[in-house]
Amino acid sequence: MEAVIKVGGSMAENPESLKRLCRELEQLAQEHRFLIVPGGGPFADLVRNVDKEFGLSDEIAHKMAILAMDQYGLLISDLISQSITIKTLEEAKKIPEKVATVILPSSLMFHTDSLKHSWDVTSDSIAAHIAELLDVKKLILIKDVDGLFTHDPKKFPQAKLISKITADELGSMKVETCIDRFLPDLIKRSQIECYIVNGNRPNRVRKILKEEEVVCTRIVS
Amino acid sequence: MEAVIKVGGSMAENPESLKRLCRELEQLAQEHRFLIVPGGGPFADLVRNVDKEFGLSDEIAHKMAILAMDQYGLLISDLISQSITIKTLEEAKKIPEKVATVILPSSLMFHTDSLKHSWDVTSDSIAAHIAELLDVKKLILIKDVDGLFTHDPKKFPQAKLISKITADELGSMKVETCIDRFLPDLIKRSQIECYIVNGNRPNRVRKILKEEEVVCTRIVS
Repeated sequence: MEAVIKVGGSMAENPESLKRLCRELEQLAQEHRFLIVPGGGPFADLVRNVDKEFGLSDEIAHKMAILAMDQYGLLISDLISQSITIKTLEEAKKIPEKVATVILPSSLMFHTDSLKHSWDVTSDSIAAHIAELLDVKKLILIKDVDGLFTHDPKKFPQAKLISKITADELGSMKVETCIDRFLPDLIKRSQIECYIVNGNRPNRVRKILKEEEVVCTRIVS
Repeated sequence: MEAVIKVGGSMAENPESLKRLCRELEQLAQEHRFLIVPGGGPFADLVRNVDKEFGLSDEIAHKMAILAMDQYGLLISDLISQSITIKTLEEAKKIPEKVATVILPSSLMFHTDSLKHSWDVTSDSIAAHIAELLDVKKLILIKDVDGLFTHDPKKFPQAKLISKITADELGSMKVETCIDRFLPDLIKRSQIECYIVNGNRPNRVRKILKEEEVVCTRIVS
């Protein structure tokens, strides 16, 4: 398998954009073998709100959030014609050619979860963990931003896109980023190359798979 | 087992009320054997909204809504100290004594689903279906209203609570009720006695289990 591709939950905020991305993934599956990992999207946001309202235990909130990934995975699979959903690593190891495959991670995570149960560990880390378990070295995190910036681009117009950064540098960065705090360690220990790319420009995902130059942030171990 | 008790999703709108109900269920489990089936609550409402936004296939929307029941079930289990969650009928048949048990229905429904995949089939029918599969004759549907009314009580102050109704009468009722359209048939074919009771008055649930007179609607086959 060439890559694990995580479709970020933020993409669901713009249905047309998510649909366009899904069409691109459908086409890309004709030429490349990859596994799609869902984010949590609006489903995880709701779990987060309910957690705040009810004061849930970490373990239960974590499980509910992972079910949110299953829900978002089902949504993505519905937007890709002729896609399939899978649940286990065994299935992931033998995904069919030319069929976009989405993993619904709850079974895997409930049974083999070695990650911390907290909101620090988001679907980014879960996607990296799945890449690690499958020994896949390319992880593409699709978000609704061009990549990581030197400063929060919403607050500082002079913020610059970081085109390449090491996991160590990222881990010690003080700036709030769009990725979770656990990810740099995972990238480092698994020698993964991680790309953060804008899903509103689906062609960029294609270029990463084809190893062409493209606007994104590359995190190297 | 004495009863299947469904905790309606609407109870989540008032966290204190849901917590109070869960404490009562915890105590009731000391004296009675029952299985708790979750509704979908805010999690199913979100799936419904996403379905409207994206125009999902019925099958996928149904699966996402059943995962919403798992999420609500986890929430309920977290609010009941020393509760357990189960997933299969086999586990349901041998639930331990004096431990409140919540079923997370996704595994069961994904594997043995004989119900229609549509929004007409809500968690009420799923709870009735689980009662049927377990051959349990008492089904308690906990909602945030006193029961079924002759008219919508929010619009017609003169609406009267229906204390007893047959499944046939219910099936032919023209008035919008708080239960789903598929339920009367299920009650009839399985010879279930169904109670609709207000969870904001947890003591009423206790009285139904003790077969005492109480404000509620009883639907007989």
